[in-house]
Amino acid sequence: MSPMFEHVAFIGFGLIGSSLARIIRRDNIAAHIAVAARSQETLDAAVELRLADSVSLDPAEAVKNADLVMICTPLGAYAEIAKTIAPALDQGCIVSDVGSVKRCVFSELAPQLPDNVHIIPAHPVAGTEHSGPKAGFAELFEGHWCIITPGKDAEPTAVEKISELWRRAGMMIEIMDADHHDRVLAMTSHLPHLIAYTIVDTTTGLEDYLKKEVAKFSAGGFRDFTRIAASDPVMWRDIFLANRDSIIEVLDRFGADLEKMKNAIRDSDGNRLIEAFRRTRDIRRGVIKAHQETPEEVKLANR
Amino acid sequence: MSPMFEHVAFIGFGLIGSSLARIIRRDNIAAHIAVAARSQETLDAAVELRLADSVSLDPAEAVKNADLVMICTPLGAYAEIAKTIAPALDQGCIVSDVGSVKRCVFSELAPQLPDNVHIIPAHPVAGTEHSGPKAGFAELFEGHWCIITPGKDAEPTAVEKISELWRRAGMMIEIMDADHHDRVLAMTSHLPHLIAYTIVDTTTGLEDYLKKEVAKFSAGGFRDFTRIAASDPVMWRDIFLANRDSIIEVLDRFGADLEKMKNAIRDSDGNRLIEAFRRTRDIRRGVIKAHQETPEEVKLANR
Repeated sequence: MSPMFEHVAFIGFGLIGSSLARIIRRDNIAAHIAVAARSQETLDAAVELRLADSVSLDPAEAVKNADLVMICTPLGAYAEIAKTIAPALDQGCIVSDVGSVKRCVFSELAPQLPDNVHIIPAHPVAGTEHSGPKAGFAELFEGHWCIITPGKDAEPTAVEKISELWRRAGMMIEIMDADHHDRVLAMTSHLPHLIAYTIVDTTTGLEDYLKKEVAKFSAGGFRDFTRIAASDPVMWRDIFLANRDSIIEVLDRFGADLEKMKNAIRDSDGNRLIEAFRRTRDIRRGVIKAHQETPEEVKLANR
Repeated sequence: MSPMFEHVAFIGFGLIGSSLARIIRRDNIAAHIAVAARSQETLDAAVELRLADSVSLDPAEAVKNADLVMICTPLGAYAEIAKTIAPALDQGCIVSDVGSVKRCVFSELAPQLPDNVHIIPAHPVAGTEHSGPKAGFAELFEGHWCIITPGKDAEPTAVEKISELWRRAGMMIEIMDADHHDRVLAMTSHLPHLIAYTIVDTTTGLEDYLKKEVAKFSAGGFRDFTRIAASDPVMWRDIFLANRDSIIEVLDRFGADLEKMKNAIRDSDGNRLIEAFRRTRDIRRGVIKAHQETPEEVKLANR
């Protein structure tokens, strides 16, 4: 069977890009993998990991002859990348990405690109708190959702090719409107990260002797937040700025709910707390039902 | 070697109590294990799991002849339990607990108990989101800290006995003032739980179609919060009420920090976000350095 793609060009090669490249290599999905990145260190890692057939510091160089371009950089780089690669893109090339906000693909990337390429934005909803090409692994995506947000004029065969690529990575595919994606992810991913960053940052204001003990006795809940808050700073800055309106909307709801919890505690209103905690247990059940458990969690739960 | 204790009485027998009982059985730490609980179902489970030599719905019955009483109930039950068991306690008996707030042992429990028993409050900082005697397992405590908060007149041999008990469960021991314990835990455990409960509850206010998708796409961060927010509602209500002042103090700090984050997002102030996110990465490193990783996390990180 001939490979699905002749020439895949990765622009950016961190956790997500390098994990996808591992799958492309493993399953012989592309004849040639080109990698472009801003640092020589990343390019060296791509070569060392045997994931790149060619490397370049220049994205325009990498996308030459590509039938698939995968943008795997922080969102803030999109506009500049679009400008750089536009003149070098082949007609009929698919340009896709893995970003966590999807509206901005249409506002930042699409306007700069020629009309004769297919823009198929995608978001594989998977990750770890680790960054960089060496943090990648082929199993990262297995059993998780990939949300694809094609524009309404998108070519169905191009959407299907991107769907098939992520299916091979073990993902389930959901097609969704970009606007809707950004609202859902604001709640399920962006707000949790913002809160985790904030609570961990709150400890930096503590007295030094307390700070040390917070690290020592973090097993009671705080540790889970520090893991989330160890995610890549630049990537997350760009997500918060790109999805500002939806994030502020859910943040305001959360702030109001937190105020209610605080008042219930101050007033020793135990019934109100219990009611809320029972509701949250039900939601946990919904999450488990939606098969969102990681294998590790299922193992722990069955112990 | 004769067992460390003649007769251990558990008052309450959920995740923590039953896990400790498994260790007492495994290592033959007590000649007799008596279990008291409010529900026959819990007592039946204790018998079925072969963790109880005698069971009773009456705490006063269970503590007869006990040289160690372990209170493993939600904090809100302490005052009532103290009143019930006080007349039945043997002289020289050690009364300990596993509660997540320690000041209230001195305010709720101690005043009701006779002077001739040793009150040695302890807090094994370990747990899962699962509840009940069947959720327990002997390895629950391994590698975590147990904080012991004896009063200043506590008998050193009694403190040492409780320390040794938790060491046998695989825990590291820290002796601390109850007041200080409650401040540290407000930050490392109580605030994270309150926030997790709140953010999960925030989704209950969403439109139905969004709610379903939040469960479906929860892998991006939200899922971790739902796990924390699935913890026992009564236990956590009591913790929030018992440690009210310390929790409101850290909650106010957090609220102010969240407002700053929101303003930075609204003003597109990327530098301020990056600065905060770099600080939180450093704290994550501190947590890893303090050896608070679970074996599962270490495994994932080394992959």
